[in-house]
Amino acid sequence: MTKAKHDRILLAHGGGGQLTDELIRHHILPNFKNDTLAELADSAKLNLNSKSVFFTTDSYVVKPLFFNGGDIGKLAVCGTVNDLAVAGSKPVALSLSLIIEEGFDFESLDKILASISEAARQNNVNIVTGDSKTVETGAADKIFINTAGIGEKLPGVDLGFDKIAAGDKIIINGTIGDHGMTIISQREGIKFESPLQSDCAGLAGLTCQLLENTKGVKFMRDPTRGGLAATLNEISKASALSIEIREADLPVNPTVQAAADMLGFDVVTIANEGKFVAIVSPESADECFNICKSHPLGKKTAIIGEVVQTRDMPMVEMTTKIGGKRIVQMPYGRQLPRIC
Amino acid sequence: MTKAKHDRILLAHGGGGQLTDELIRHHILPNFKNDTLAELADSAKLNLNSKSVFFTTDSYVVKPLFFNGGDIGKLAVCGTVNDLAVAGSKPVALSLSLIIEEGFDFESLDKILASISEAARQNNVNIVTGDSKTVETGAADKIFINTAGIGEKLPGVDLGFDKIAAGDKIIINGTIGDHGMTIISQREGIKFESPLQSDCAGLAGLTCQLLENTKGVKFMRDPTRGGLAATLNEISKASALSIEIREADLPVNPTVQAAADMLGFDVVTIANEGKFVAIVSPESADECFNICKSHPLGKKTAIIGEVVQTRDMPMVEMTTKIGGKRIVQMPYGRQLPRIC
Repeated sequence: MTKAKHDRILLAHGGGGQLTDELIRHHILPNFKNDTLAELADSAKLNLNSKSVFFTTDSYVVKPLFFNGGDIGKLAVCGTVNDLAVAGSKPVALSLSLIIEEGFDFESLDKILASISEAARQNNVNIVTGDSKTVETGAADKIFINTAGIGEKLPGVDLGFDKIAAGDKIIINGTIGDHGMTIISQREGIKFESPLQSDCAGLAGLTCQLLENTKGVKFMRDPTRGGLAATLNEISKASALSIEIREADLPVNPTVQAAADMLGFDVVTIANEGKFVAIVSPESADECFNICKSHPLGKKTAIIGEVVQTRDMPMVEMTTKIGGKRIVQMPYGRQLPRIC
Repeated sequence: MTKAKHDRILLAHGGGGQLTDELIRHHILPNFKNDTLAELADSAKLNLNSKSVFFTTDSYVVKPLFFNGGDIGKLAVCGTVNDLAVAGSKPVALSLSLIIEEGFDFESLDKILASISEAARQNNVNIVTGDSKTVETGAADKIFINTAGIGEKLPGVDLGFDKIAAGDKIIINGTIGDHGMTIISQREGIKFESPLQSDCAGLAGLTCQLLENTKGVKFMRDPTRGGLAATLNEISKASALSIEIREADLPVNPTVQAAADMLGFDVVTIANEGKFVAIVSPESADECFNICKSHPLGKKTAIIGEVVQTRDMPMVEMTTKIGGKRIVQMPYGRQLPRIC
């Protein structure tokens, strides 16, 4: 693969789309050749003392820090919990590292810390180790948070791209685009009659319930930066299979759709923070659907499409509401900086 | 404990001294009540699958990014390796998370990534999971790095404040103040005839060799922010014992001493990045000294003092070169922002 064509970091390199992929494949991966990292999974699977443990990390730079439905603290817990959850593990411990700008007010800091504490409690994980750094005024934007996490592998569960086959069904546990459209609307100062609210939530309760009650789940991923479009393209590329989804079956909150239309965004590219996509065997699809439906975080679960054989090259296609077909591309990544 | 008296974050809250302690005890710990975090160890000890695993995290905001003896990448690997090493574990896996300012040049980024790769190789750890975020120009200062790490407990090794007793000897594996004085001199644009060089190094090779060859080690900690003064005060406070050290036995590079004198710093408060303090039983002190001496990172190892019974309250005292005594206080934390 040739070197990337940029000589400086662009915001889009952090957008979760094509340029993020370039940053990872051209600059990061060549330096760190090991099988675990090369899988680019949401969490790394380690063999410690001959048992499997999952390990993941994420830094959070969301702007604004407080948004309808959450804040950077809740996001930092839920995001890392979700990376462990979709890997098929039960989150057990998180680390917490803060980078704080000189002058940041303790009132906000305390609110964020309380929110982290509450989210950890709700998700049944402990914050077991931490770090804090300060930088001069102007050297960071208020506060950045990193959480890394460790999860224990659920017994008998083994998920992976290699399990995916043509005919598998694609399930999502609710509406798409809520987090991203909430952030962008709040940033632009736009108010809607029915207020937007981030879907920010920890999914381990739901995913553990699902994995403990069915053997049909083959792969899961949380569609954060780059939205459903990025996640489905990653799945298609890694499994070398194509994906067909139906726009009519995508759960979308009408206010989110209206906001996206008004601001010129495609909801399938918008970040979610309380959603997972599951690839499940066709026989188990109804069972999976019902298990998700019965959970508070899965009330709007939908089966949105199928995995199909690839003709020319792996791609994601969507049948539109009016019956046409369009290719759902990997987003370029520029549209939504600092969404998480 | 009463609330802290500041309503905004000061740089000193990140300095590793009294104000960092206030930030942790007044704001962070009250939100996260669990036994593991409350120990405030360099690494958290977790029981996973009934085996012990150590877990730690650190964010790095050092300025400048490149310094004599290392760079932010090498530091991010060595710092986290060292937190695992001094806990008595063998580091096995690290995570890597980058926050990059828009416009940061890829040439520097690639140098940092190569340096991370080389440091990981030298320390025998893999980078197994990662994340990258970008923020707008002006929202961060070039690049911040977080590494979290997992280590496997060394069999038969059990270190802790509770093992420390009066009569124990205090060992350090070499000269103090090198990292901090290198950074501050470079930042101030001061050049010395004999150039300063950071001691930035991963200590797991040395600590594992030590722990595998003697049973006398009771506790270890790496004296980073706040230097030897902060580490010894933490040990004294946590063990409720006093500490006596001898200035004449402290290994100090003469150029570091000259730089510290010139700039008005006390070398015992200056950060190190390739040093550990070990508290060892009196019987094993010579053995520990010799094992350290035989390792490339322990050529200037010294026994610098003893743990003694407390009279009024636990404190750290130093016999000066001219035979006087002075109390070595916990530094306030303001003098060296962004040292690591």
